[in-house]
Amino acid sequence: MAKDKKFVSEITSREEDFAQWFTDVCIKAELIDYSSIKGFTIMRPYGQALWENIQKIMDARFKAAGVENVAMPMLIPESLLQKEKDHVVGFAPEVAWVTHGGSEKLEERLCVRPTSETLFCDHWAHVLQTYRQLPMKYNQWCSVVRWEKTTRPFLRGREFFWQEGHTIHETADEARAFTLKMLDIYADFAENSLMMPVIKGQKTESEKFAGAEATYTIEAMMHDGKALQSGTSHYFGDGFARAYDVTFADRNNTISYPHQTSWGVSTRIIGALIMSHGDDSGLVMPPAVAPVQLVIVPVAQHKEGVLEKANELKERLSANWRVKLDDSDNSPGWKFNQYEMKGVPLRLEIGPKDIEKGQCVLVRRDNREKTFVSLDQLETVVPQLLKELETAIYEKAKANLEARTEYLSTMEEIIASSQAKDGFISTLWCGDAECEEAMKEQAGLSSRCMPFGQQDDVNGVCPVCGKPAKHRVIWGKAY
Amino acid sequence: MAKDKKFVSEITSREEDFAQWFTDVCIKAELIDYSSIKGFTIMRPYGQALWENIQKIMDARFKAAGVENVAMPMLIPESLLQKEKDHVVGFAPEVAWVTHGGSEKLEERLCVRPTSETLFCDHWAHVLQTYRQLPMKYNQWCSVVRWEKTTRPFLRGREFFWQEGHTIHETADEARAFTLKMLDIYADFAENSLMMPVIKGQKTESEKFAGAEATYTIEAMMHDGKALQSGTSHYFGDGFARAYDVTFADRNNTISYPHQTSWGVSTRIIGALIMSHGDDSGLVMPPAVAPVQLVIVPVAQHKEGVLEKANELKERLSANWRVKLDDSDNSPGWKFNQYEMKGVPLRLEIGPKDIEKGQCVLVRRDNREKTFVSLDQLETVVPQLLKELETAIYEKAKANLEARTEYLSTMEEIIASSQAKDGFISTLWCGDAECEEAMKEQAGLSSRCMPFGQQDDVNGVCPVCGKPAKHRVIWGKAY
Repeated sequence: MAKDKKFVSEITSREEDFAQWFTDVCIKAELIDYSSIKGFTIMRPYGQALWENIQKIMDARFKAAGVENVAMPMLIPESLLQKEKDHVVGFAPEVAWVTHGGSEKLEERLCVRPTSETLFCDHWAHVLQTYRQLPMKYNQWCSVVRWEKTTRPFLRGREFFWQEGHTIHETADEARAFTLKMLDIYADFAENSLMMPVIKGQKTESEKFAGAEATYTIEAMMHDGKALQSGTSHYFGDGFARAYDVTFADRNNTISYPHQTSWGVSTRIIGALIMSHGDDSGLVMPPAVAPVQLVIVPVAQHKEGVLEKANELKERLSANWRVKLDDSDNSPGWKFNQYEMKGVPLRLEIGPKDIEKGQCVLVRRDNREKTFVSLDQLETVVPQLLKELETAIYEKAKANLEARTEYLSTMEEIIASSQAKDGFISTLWCGDAECEEAMKEQAGLSSRCMPFGQQDDVNGVCPVCGKPAKHRVIWGKAY
Repeated sequence: MAKDKKFVSEITSREEDFAQWFTDVCIKAELIDYSSIKGFTIMRPYGQALWENIQKIMDARFKAAGVENVAMPMLIPESLLQKEKDHVVGFAPEVAWVTHGGSEKLEERLCVRPTSETLFCDHWAHVLQTYRQLPMKYNQWCSVVRWEKTTRPFLRGREFFWQEGHTIHETADEARAFTLKMLDIYADFAENSLMMPVIKGQKTESEKFAGAEATYTIEAMMHDGKALQSGTSHYFGDGFARAYDVTFADRNNTISYPHQTSWGVSTRIIGALIMSHGDDSGLVMPPAVAPVQLVIVPVAQHKEGVLEKANELKERLSANWRVKLDDSDNSPGWKFNQYEMKGVPLRLEIGPKDIEKGQCVLVRRDNREKTFVSLDQLETVVPQLLKELETAIYEKAKANLEARTEYLSTMEEIIASSQAKDGFISTLWCGDAECEEAMKEQAGLSSRCMPFGQQDDVNGVCPVCGKPAKHRVIWGKAY
């Protein structure tokens, strides 16, 4: 691996090559680095700080929903993985196998967890006894391994970080309601913390999780019109419980199976954030999760009093925000580029003339709008500008989503639209997997979800087969 | 695995069987559960909450020392592991090997990280260019795998959770100073958050980390007199940097190797906490890390007004402490046992008569001392009692450490003492590995450390060979 001597470098423009722009941003904003192992990346301090901010907000919301954190083993015995038939078929082809411990060959090989339903069920079979212990609402923050063929930073890695929540409940109704509650938490986090509009809906049979009765999803649209599945929540019924012999004595003292859910959001959501808000200068960070919310760049910092004032402002503003002061030898221009690349929401510039006038300049990352602010007004103006930026980047992403969504009803229209551009195509659908497959083959589109709140009015026909429709489906090209 | 129908069960007494007492506490206080894979345990909600409290305090201290979190891959290619000769000899015999990804055999096998020096060096070789980037002070919270033959909860597992800090510095002096700074942070955390007295010192050559120039340690003594290594900090010199070709342009624009450190504390420290403070009723949690600091047990809770008042107190006290109200159907006596088992520092009992008098009862976990407290005085008395408990458990552990430490000078005394009881034995030592080995063979003692502040006065002879002493060493039997 050659050393890159440039610290702030040009990045490819989005129009020229969106995929290359994405990779450039990941590397040059120092979110990640490649490791020596294909498909495994390194989370650098800036990327990890972003993920920790995401974790902190989500974890607090989970705990408010009564969820407790636990930690399961990272390895799963092959025999344990195989107990649930659909699950093993879904995951066995893409797991990494541990076959030796030290110099000895293991009696049974162990896979590095690709997901942990099997481990949670094994534990519950051991500890669950009575309905009084239900619900058990558990979550773990960890990494999982899936041996993907093609990999991309954040979007598809052989190892990725996520949270996986697993719960068991006394009744099917309670479990179904909790599945949707977690989807709501995900959607609320995406919309109000990441400022990323999402569509909530249910996956079709062919797109649901291996072993689930129903999978729900939040789907976001990227700047280029492609879809990114940003979080999923699964309802399992009692299928896993039966396969793993998880039982409890119910209120009638009868042995029953609990009803189960699982739900996960991964570092993919960082990919979604990048491709929702970024521009040709680099990242644009939503303030709620930005590792640095405001960067102070002193101008003519060798002049008397400038660094003192900059340090004083840093101290003062750090009481309310995540603030960085860059007093390095690099030029102000270099610093402007650097923190634009890193997507810092606000830049505060202060030089000798500003200090004389008792003011500074605040620059918004998204539109580069400059505001001259009296120093004693910062505590009022900074939150206003952050709020304005939040609203603006949400509205911009929302406008992109709306402009790139079409409601179509014939295959001719669908194929033409899909060939012309990337975006969401909303159509009716008969519910047959063959027609779903035909959409893939003829129009290159995969079903993203059956969107909530749009399933009542399905008067019309499936564009593929012409049979009466049962659902409305959003189709797209997916990351 | 059979289901244990009892929720609060008798635990083995410490005098009868300390090892069994330890296991009983781990399981029955619901810190962990065994998994289906030998040597891999499950962190249950109570154990994970404890670990998260530990993480939170330590992470804040690391960040105050300028450390940034990152995340490295969990797998290491065999060729990468092998670049540092001592390191591979130390770790290769005990790693788990991934040999297959999906259905394909890998070209090169990958080990699950037993520690990550090699990965950090590989990354630094890629990104480090100039002294301006130094120091780089990184840490990660993760789990590692070491294929141990014998395993015990928290003390020795095939997978365990820890933090591993890795830093590189411009100069050897700076790296050495940072190695000791992190050891100080560990010692301070152990003493002032876990209330566990520790001895700081340097490991002997034969006990140091594979590949290190020097290893420093904090050693704690358990209730039974055995030693538990509770945290280590290593100085590497530039050995790894040379092996992994990590270089930078120094202030004279000459290519130089940085000087490196690493330092780690694992979930072993939970084992240390249990065996330092626990008693025959179960855990005793230090307040700083206790998942629940105060538990409210209503008495005669069906009587009018009791649960209302208990809930009101819960709301009120939760502003300052981690509070649990147990309003379950279980009897107050069951609850008393349950939360003593779980080591909750303070119990608040409140019943109809207390409410009439405007008071409640606070019971300290460590000595079961009862205090009647006026309800309007809780905000004053609760922190006093927590503070008193902290001091008391520290002093008790300190007294145990002192009572079980002997300063001896002849092999006869040493062997007699070691056979009579477990504890620390402090002696002079010539510095030869053969004499260290003889202490193991003749007296069953391993060197714990060469304690700081006691290395000046080494006038005397080695008790094994009679040659002039060079060091003072603390010996013990270790977990």
